[in-house]
Order: sequence, then structure tokens, then C-alpha cells
Amino acid sequence: MRGFASDNNAGVHPKIMAALAAANHGHSIAYGDDELSDEASKKFKTIFGADSESFFVLNGTGANVLSLSAVTYPYNAVICPESAHINTDECGAPERFAGCKLLTVPCDDGKLHIESIRPFLYASGFQHHSQPRVVSISQPTEFGTVYTRDEICAIADFAHANNMLLHIDGARIANAAATLSCGLEDITSATSADFMSFGGTKNGLMYGEAVVFFKKSLAKNFKYIRKQGMQLASKMRYISAQFIAYLEDDLWYKNALHANTMTALLSKEIREIKEIRITQKVEANAIFAIIPKEIIKVLQSKYFFYVWNEELSEVRWMTSWDTSEDDVFDFVNEIKQNLYNL
Amino acid sequence: MRGFASDNNAGVHPKIMAALAAANHGHSIAYGDDELSDEASKKFKTIFGADSESFFVLNGTGANVLSLSAVTYPYNAVICPESAHINTDECGAPERFAGCKLLTVPCDDGKLHIESIRPFLYASGFQHHSQPRVVSISQPTEFGTVYTRDEICAIADFAHANNMLLHIDGARIANAAATLSCGLEDITSATSADFMSFGGTKNGLMYGEAVVFFKKSLAKNFKYIRKQGMQLASKMRYISAQFIAYLEDDLWYKNALHANTMTALLSKEIREIKEIRITQKVEANAIFAIIPKEIIKVLQSKYFFYVWNEELSEVRWMTSWDTSEDDVFDFVNEIKQNLYNL
Amino acid sequence: MRGFASDNNAGVHPKIMAALAAANHGHSIAYGDDELSDEASKKFKTIFGADSESFFVLNGTGANVLSLSAVTYPYNAVICPESAHINTDECGAPERFAGCKLLTVPCDDGKLHIESIRPFLYASGFQHHSQPRVVSISQPTEFGTVYTRDEICAIADFAHANNMLLHIDGARIANAAATLSCGLEDITSATSADFMSFGGTKNGLMYGEAVVFFKKSLAKNFKYIRKQGMQLASKMRYISAQFIAYLEDDLWYKNALHANTMTALLSKEIREIKEIRITQKVEANAIFAIIPKEIIKVLQSKYFFYVWNEELSEVRWMTSWDTSEDDVFDFVNEIKQNLYNL
Amino acid sequence: MRGFASDNNAGVHPKIMAALAAANHGHSIAYGDDELSDEASKKFKTIFGADSESFFVLNGTGANVLSLSAVTYPYNAVICPESAHINTDECGAPERFAGCKLLTVPCDDGKLHIESIRPFLYASGFQHHSQPRVVSISQPTEFGTVYTRDEICAIADFAHANNMLLHIDGARIANAAATLSCGLEDITSATSADFMSFGGTKNGLMYGEAVVFFKKSLAKNFKYIRKQGMQLASKMRYISAQFIAYLEDDLWYKNALHANTMTALLSKEIREIKEIRITQKVEANAIFAIIPKEIIKVLQSKYFFYVWNEELSEVRWMTSWDTSEDDVFDFVNEIKQNLYNL
Repeated sequence: MRGFASDNNAGVHPKIMAALAAANHGHSIAYGDDELSDEASKKFKTIFGADSESFFVLNGTGANVLSLSAVTYPYNAVICPESAHINTDECGAPERFAGCKLLTVPCDDGKLHIESIRPFLYASGFQHHSQPRVVSISQPTEFGTVYTRDEICAIADFAHANNMLLHIDGARIANAAATLSCGLEDITSATSADFMSFGGTKNGLMYGEAVVFFKKSLAKNFKYIRKQGMQLASKMRYISAQFIAYLEDDLWYKNALHANTMTALLSKEIREIKEIRITQKVEANAIFAIIPKEIIKVLQSKYFFYVWNEELSEVRWMTSWDTSEDDVFDFVNEIKQNLYNL
Repeated sequence: MRGFASDNNAGVHPKIMAALAAANHGHSIAYGDDELSDEASKKFKTIFGADSESFFVLNGTGANVLSLSAVTYPYNAVICPESAHINTDECGAPERFAGCKLLTVPCDDGKLHIESIRPFLYASGFQHHSQPRVVSISQPTEFGTVYTRDEICAIADFAHANNMLLHIDGARIANAAATLSCGLEDITSATSADFMSFGGTKNGLMYGEAVVFFKKSLAKNFKYIRKQGMQLASKMRYISAQFIAYLEDDLWYKNALHANTMTALLSKEIREIKEIRITQKVEANAIFAIIPKEIIKVLQSKYFFYVWNEELSEVRWMTSWDTSEDDVFDFVNEIKQNLYNL
Repeated sequence: MRGFASDNNAGVHPKIMAALAAANHGHSIAYGDDELSDEASKKFKTIFGADSESFFVLNGTGANVLSLSAVTYPYNAVICPESAHINTDECGAPERFAGCKLLTVPCDDGKLHIESIRPFLYASGFQHHSQPRVVSISQPTEFGTVYTRDEICAIADFAHANNMLLHIDGARIANAAATLSCGLEDITSATSADFMSFGGTKNGLMYGEAVVFFKKSLAKNFKYIRKQGMQLASKMRYISAQFIAYLEDDLWYKNALHANTMTALLSKEIREIKEIRITQKVEANAIFAIIPKEIIKVLQSKYFFYVWNEELSEVRWMTSWDTSEDDVFDFVNEIKQNLYNL
Repeated sequence: MRGFASDNNAGVHPKIMAALAAANHGHSIAYGDDELSDEASKKFKTIFGADSESFFVLNGTGANVLSLSAVTYPYNAVICPESAHINTDECGAPERFAGCKLLTVPCDDGKLHIESIRPFLYASGFQHHSQPRVVSISQPTEFGTVYTRDEICAIADFAHANNMLLHIDGARIANAAATLSCGLEDITSATSADFMSFGGTKNGLMYGEAVVFFKKSLAKNFKYIRKQGMQLASKMRYISAQFIAYLEDDLWYKNALHANTMTALLSKEIREIKEIRITQKVEANAIFAIIPKEIIKVLQSKYFFYVWNEELSEVRWMTSWDTSEDDVFDFVNEIKQNLYNL
């Protein structure tokens, strides 16, 4: 049974499973010195540019925390939206490992804007204050909204003008690219963003994420940071194999587009239900909606999902690469039935 | 082609691959709240006792560092052999994350003895010195030697008598159990050891390791430590599925026994070569041997392996669950051929 | 010349200088095992109760960070006002050393209220979120306002009811006691607060602060934390001597009362100047005021002080134990002169 | 009464007390922006060169840990003698704060030699191993032996040839200079060492130490590291005043020379006692000696000192700037009396 709680709950795409099986013969040198890892690395360079360097890590928190750690000193600060995954959902991992302070900005739609970054710059040069060094945005945001390419460029330019770097938490970057009908590079390396956490697990992979530095100079110590950061996989070939398959034949794009399309369908259906109010722009594969409190429990018992804001009775629904049209219609029917029963 | 560099270079056992495929249907709640994870957890309790608590993490460094971190304050020290993986092969991860000092003991055969632990106890109670809190042993050791059950019990008792805990780095615990013809519990929870890093990747798994606390009280904060430690897998069911298959029908034991047997065969063959001297007791799936310097490069070009001690011309050879008798004989022939060519 | 920038800019009280001189004879065992340290420790117990334990550290950041570190795990969070010194003026020291996240609340007057703490409790028990463990308040606040005893008790009770502890940043605790005409214990140990950073440097000492745990059980590892935290003084007797003199004959109270009285005088004079608007309640030894932008630079050139909010043209003025009435009147005249010259 | 336990137990030199008194007038901007700090800073530049940068910190552990932290990443390692203060007497502070591993070398006389450093270099470039970045020596060593200028140069050159830096723990650097009849710079900045912890507390100061980088480029982030490292003094002028006086009229040299001379005297007297065997070269202000176990307790009851090696019955005796000839003779008589009473 497939639900709408999170794209993390979905399974692994058959092509990824096939790639894992295909990778499973003979011996390969561990820790990344194997042919598949070499091939994956080249694929990344083709996409993100000759000056880019990519590294596989084990999960999304690892990708975020270690990449931030690679470009900061502990006395630095990272500016991000209050809703950022690094701020709300990583149990303080960035603070503990990078040692940095997070300077957070309340953002109704999850998007950071230059004007909300500017006030933090006053700290610059004063020894009493954490020194802002990185701006981190999530693309798409944790509210399912998507930055345009221009918005990203503007933030990157502002960051650079103020001696900062731009990090993109791309746990769902494929969904953003699908929204904008563009390539992965168009909204990452081809902006002047500096580095990215590149997720795959939420879009059909089994495990493994990538850190991509768009400028080689930022990457020079990362292999040590990854190892000391407990994120070096021994049988690396199996992560590499997944990413090779993911980038082949635009699997990443097709999966993401499908998930987005299913969300668009769900959103279209939901908008016709007058008891439910969608609270965020629906731009990727998430819907935020205020629904009658009374139906939450019973609906969850059949389709588990998360309540985002208890007080507002706001919930989050997500679709994934494997969501079917029938899943959507069944879910909508279930909602309607529950509302009818009120 | 299969080599003798490391059991980390081997592939994934077919039964594990089958378990991964079988786990791949429908949606499961992420982060461990799924049925397979529940089943795996119960299996662990059956083996390691009702008071045990187990947690999956992403790799061996994660298992070691996070479990040590769970039972220490940063002002504590961990006593271990100089050759311990936590000391030599984790790029300082224990120091960085746990904040602890490692107090190391030179051990020719990789085994810690009570007499070498005792001198560190003088620090106890003095604010200037890191306070010893954990003794950590590797079973088998990094030199392929195996502690008897009695040896472990003695160290555990000594640790407890001095207000310390015993940690077992069991990255290859299955090989030790196969050596001693016993169950996993017999040399872990059934001694008075306190907690273990339980490895599977080196013995036929794709990824994923477990931390097992043999006393529930030690585990009470571990879920937060795992998350903040960047080691919480989102699609946990795929790690759980592997461990379920690993523990079923004694797959863990069969794989380890096979690897050990292949090492025994290799060792038997090698002992007949007068130019080579085996330097450690061969008790699990590793052989350490001094070989003529001249043949190292050419042999490595066909069968990659690690030089352990450049100066002594000492090398390490390992077998794995998938090593065949033919692999062994071919390798031995290659060695002989190279020696003959000298 | 004496200014109004900070009580940190004042010198050392003559009685403290005398105590330092008196302590300077013969040898004393270093690191706190001396008679003066013993005497100081007893004095603290007399004031803060038999179950209290006190420790000298080197500065205020040390007192805050190490005491927070003593009662938290790195996965914990500390709830505090956005304006808290630990959040704004310690360059990320709490995050780096304690590893904890700070959860901050915007507070116009620097005071925390229960209602602003409550929303953070939702995180409790979820592995993805830092677990709130300490509420930290500054008494007086960074805006010179003072919590009543009842306000502190209410926060402490709320904290305890939710499995949290209450920390008081008492860098200027003497000023708060002078405001409330009470003893140090009345607004600290005699509430149900749990531990305190007890400052003296801002009120006539040369250096040295104290950490006071009101419950011995919280203090049991602090000596190691202090040493590993780089805050153990070798010639401890000189800190102890200062604190003994500070607590004798109510020197702490007299100094603080004098500073407060000078602030009251300054505030009274300032309120008669129509171009200046005081923005916070004046309850201790600080005044926050919006003044005409044009006079800031010229006034600073004679009396250096800090601009608190550039945009609002808000400044902070402080008095100290050595501020004289003449200092106040001269300063007010200088302000008036500058305004007149506009 | 003056003992022989440690130069840390001595008091503050009268000229330092006078400097503190002289500094105590009016207001000074806190945190180092005052005239005395400016003057001290210039004095340091005069001594250690125009490219040097100095910073005051609060104690010796702070000086060591923060300076090491300034030039390393957490994945780096610091090579030092097993007996180094950073290894044995700082409760793991370097590991916790810098995150680095210490790679230690057993050194009978406390001195590091190139040959014992070399084996650590094999780790270079391998992601599994902490990367050696700093060599740290204590001058004089913890055993009271003194490196010659040539020995320091040789280690510095070797360090640089291998992409490492040389740190000098100069907690007692004045004593080494007095031994070698040279200036502070001659054995520090004028070698090619890179940075130093410059102590004063053990040689007549009340508190405060300095970190001196001999190359400005190493110092560029240190002000933030100091603040985040909890080592920024608010009333900085009092540390600066002490160091100005310390460097004036060669007070540092006279104090150290006196202490050394008293140790030489004590050593001369001790060598005539046949029951006692001095175990280290006596080159600065410490004596290590094996004495009859039976007299330790009774002797300690009158003159407290530390047993260095319980098993060997080896003790450490130190003299300080205030030790008198009578102190020495009285102590020697006490020893003889106790031996006689056996």
C-alpha cells in the first residue's frame, strides 16, 4: 500500500534495483577506488562542470553537515530559513559537527530573500559574533515551493558580494528541476551557487547522497572530512551504481516529474473540496493544507501522514515516483468519505 | 575477479540481494518505524537478550563512534590497542565526535591484556587527566587473532571492577564466532561485555551495521545520538531486511566459516613456501606475512592487497564469503610463479 | 576618565586590589587546593545552601558555556531570549563546546515568558529534533530589565514540569539583587532555579567568575568539564581572594547599588531631554535610548559607548561601581551641549 | 612557606603587583581595545618580529589548545612527546576543542627527535588516517630538559619539509632562555618555528598567557577562535599590564635565571645524598629524582610535592622565582633528617 506521508516512504525504482544487481559481481576495491565510482564521478563532472568535484555520502544529513563543515570554521554562521531541514530536522547535527551557529529567518513560504539576509551582515568583523559564511537554501523548499533560477542567482550574487557562499540543500533537487523543466545543472552549478547536497533517496534510490562542490578549490579536504565525519561507505560501488542508473536516460527527471504530476493531480482534486484549504503554492511534490481536525486521526489510520502544525490543523501530503493516479483518487475518495461522515 | 585485499572488496551475498528485492514493495514509514525494522529488532533481542537494545547505523565508523559517544562524556578516555580500527583507521572520528582521548597500548598480536590496562587507572579522579571509562577490543583483532570467551570475560570483569565498560568492535564478529564454533551471543552479550559494534558489510551485506547495547540502560539516548551523529537511515527497511536475512539459517555463520576456511587453506599452502613467513596466529580470515619485497608490486598488479608494514615487507591477505578454493590455489600459484621468477 | 560604555570598562575596586595583595605571600597549592579557595567555597555554601557546589572559572563565556555543557547532551537544546548573551555575544561558543542548539525567542524587553517557551516542547521525544533541556535567562536582562522573584519561580516551575532545568546568566546578578533589595540567594538558589553563572568582573573584580550549581548532583563531573573546557586557573587563590572580599561586608551589594543609583540619576536627567527617548524600563545599571543620529559620533569621541541599533539610532549607556555623580552630570551636559549645537 | 612542588604554587612578583596597581585607574575599553594592550602588542612585535601577531589568553591550556586549533582542521594530527602537557595534563582539551588526534612518541627525556616523527608521515594523503599537520614540543620539556637552538631548528625544518608546522609550548620558555643565556626570540621566532604558547604565570605573573604566531598569516582568524574558545578576557588591560612589566628590565629573564639557579643549587646538594638518584639532566628549574619510598609521605607533609612515578618512587621538585637559598638548604636538611630517621 502506498501513502502520502513522504517520498522517503516509497520503495526503490526497478532500474535502481537492476543496477544494484548488475554491480554485484566479483571484487571491487573498497572506499571508492572502483570502476563504478570512477564512472559515476565522470558523469557528475559532465553534468556539473569540469571544475566540479563530487563525493558520495551515506545520507542527507551527512551531505548537508559535512559539506557545510568543509567550507566553514566553527566560528562561522550559516544563514538559512527557520524551516530549513538543517535547522529543524537534524537534531542539531550542524551545530555539533560543524560547530557553527545557524542564523535563521522566519519565511512563510520557506524561501529566503536578500532583504532577510542583510541584517546578519552587521556581525562581520566583530569578534563577539559568529561570522556569516554560508547562505543555505532548500530547493524545493521544505514547503514545496520552488526558487526560480533568477532567485537563486540573486541570492548567490548577494552572498558572494558579502564574502559568503551559497549552499543548496537539494534533497529533492530533481523535483525542482522537473518543476522548472530544466537540467540539474541549470539551477545549481550554472547559477553561481557554490555547492550542493544532491539527494536521490527520496526519488527512487535505496540509500546514498552526493555532495557536489561546483568549484574544485572548495573540495580539497573533503575526503578527510567525509571519513572523520563517519560518512565514507566501504562498498562504495553500490552507491555509485545507483547514481549512474539515476542519471541515465533521465531517470531522475522522469521520477520527479511523475511525483510532481501526481501532486498536481492531488492538488487539483483537493481544491474542489471546500472544507480543505491549501496553504502553500503547490510547485513540486508536496501539498500543505488545513483540514478539519476531526478527520485527521481516522484518515491517518488508513493513510499515514504528518501533521505539520497541530494548532492550525495543517497537514503535509507528498507524492513520490511510485504514486499512481489510482492512489490519488482513492485517497481523495477516502478524504471525501471522512468529511461526509462528519 | 576476486582478490585477497579485504573482505570489504567482496560483493553482496545472493540471499541478501534477494532480501533487498523482497523488501522492495509498497511504502514503509521511514526512519525505522516499519515492520521489517520491528522484526529485525525482535531477532536481535532473541539473540542478545531481553535487556538488549539494538540500532542500525550506516557504517562501521558510525557504529564505533556513536556507541562510544553514547556511554562517555568528552572528558573520558577509551583504552584500546594501538592497532585498533578506532585508533588507526577512522581519521580521528572518535576524538572529534565523542571528544574523548584514546589511550593506546602497543599489542603485538592486537590483543589487549589486563596488565596493559592497569597503568591507565592512575588518572582516575584527577581533574587534569582524561578519565578512563571504556575498554575497547576488536574481535577478531585487526591482526586476525581471536580472543577466547574467557579472555573477554576477564577484561570485562576488570573493566567493571574499575568503573569502566567493555566495548567490542565486532566488525568481523561472525568470523570470531566461526573460529570458536559458537553463537554470536556467546562471545558478546553472554560475557559481561556492555555493548558492541556488530558488522555485516564485511561478511556479505551491502551496507549497514548495528550497535547493540546489552543493557537497555545504556541505550536510552541513542536515538538522538544516532540522528545528531548523521547515521539515521531514511529507508531503514533495507538495512533491516539485510540483517533479517543475515541472521536467518545461520547465513552469518556459514559465510564467516567459509571465509575462515579459505584463510586456513591459504595459510596451509603458504606455510609450505619457505620464502614467506607468517607473522601472526591465523585464527580468523586474515593472514599477515613477510614476503620478499621484490614480488609485491608484480603480485599486486594481478591481485591487489595491502602492505601492512613497508619496512618489514609485511603484507595482509584476507579471504571473504565468496572466496573459492580455486581462487586460493590460483593465488598461491601466482605467488610461487613470482618467487620462481626472482 | 570614566565613560558610560560598559561596566566592563571600569577598573578594580580598591578592596579587591587589597585582597589580591593580601593573598600574595608564600606558596599555595595550585588549581584550587589552597586555603583561600577552601574559604571561598565555604562562603558560597553559606549563601547558596548546603546542597550547592561552586566552581571558579576564568570568564563569563566560560561560566555560561561550561555550566550549560555540564547538564546537557549535545542533542539537547537551550531555550533563551534572542537577545541572550549566549546567543548574541559569544561567537557561537555554546554551540561549539556544548554541541547544543539554542532555541531563541524574540523578547522586546529581554525577558522570557512561559508562553514563548511552550511551543518548543513539541519536539520532545522525536529523534529528528534537538531535545529542550535548559531554559536560560539573564538576570538582569541584556536590556537592563529585572525579573521579579516570582517571575523566576514561575519559569523554574514550568521548566521542571517539563523535564528542563533553569539556568541564570548572572553576569550582573548583583545589580538585580540591588534593584530588588534582596540577597543573592533570594533570586537564585532560593527560587527553584538550578544553576547560575555568577559574575563579578563587571562589578569591581579584575577577573574570574563562578559557576554555582544549587543541587550538588548537577556538579558531579564539573571539575573535568572545567579542565577540558580550558577554564581551570592555575593560581586559583587570586580568584578566590577576590570573591571572598567581594562577598565580605556586602561589597557586591554596595557596588551594584551604587551603579544602579547612578543609572537612576542619569535616567532622571535624560528624561528631561525631549530629543531623547528611553526605550526600555530602567531597572538596573543600563539605559537604552533613541538619540538624534547627528550627535552620536561627536559624543562617542569624548565618551565612547555602543550603538545598539543602528537603524533606530538606539544607544546603550551603562554605569558602574565607580561612576560618580559628577561623571553623570558632565555626561548629561555634554549631551545637552551637543544637542544645542545641532 | 615556600615549597618545591611547582612554580605554579609561587606567588606574584612585586613588580607585577605594582603594574596591576598602576593599571587600575579610570576606564579602559574592554576586550583589548585599550592603550596598555596596544603597548603590549607593540612590545611583542619588537621581540618576535614585525610579521608576528600576539594574543592574550587566560591560561596555558587555552594558549595551547586555541593556537593548535587555529592552524589545524579536525582531521589533522599533532605529533608530540608522550609526556607533553597537551597529552597528559589537559584532560583531553586538545582532542575535544581542536578535534585532532595526538600522535605521541615515547621520549625518555621529554625531547622529540626527527627519527621518531618520521614514521607518522606514512599517513599523509590517506583518507583513513588523521593527517599530521603540527609538531609540538615543550621548551623546556616536562622533564626539565632544554632543546638547543639547533635542535629546534632541525625539527622546524623537518616539519616544514613535510608540510607541517612547529608549535612550541613555552609555558616555561623563560627558563629555557635563561638556561641558554639567550633572548626569548632566539629560541622561538628566530628559529623557523611557527607559533608558540608563551607562559608567564609560572614565572611571576598572576594569570594570563600569550599566543604568538611568528607569521601573521597564521593569525588571521585567531580573534574569533579566542572568543569562541572562551578565552577572551574582558578587562584585558590587566593581562597586558602584567606582560609589559614582565618584558621590562628583563624581569622575565631575572626571574627564570633565579629559579634555574636555585634548581642548580638544589641539584648540587642532592647529588651528594647517596640514597637519591637524579634521573633527568637538570637544565632548567626541575629535578626528577628517585628517592626512598619511606620518606615521601613524611617529607610531603612538610613540603608538598608530586610523585611522578609511583612505581619507581620518582618525584619531581621545582624551584621558582621566589625560592631562596635558605629554602633550598632547609629542604635539603629536611630530606637528610628524614633519611637519617629511616
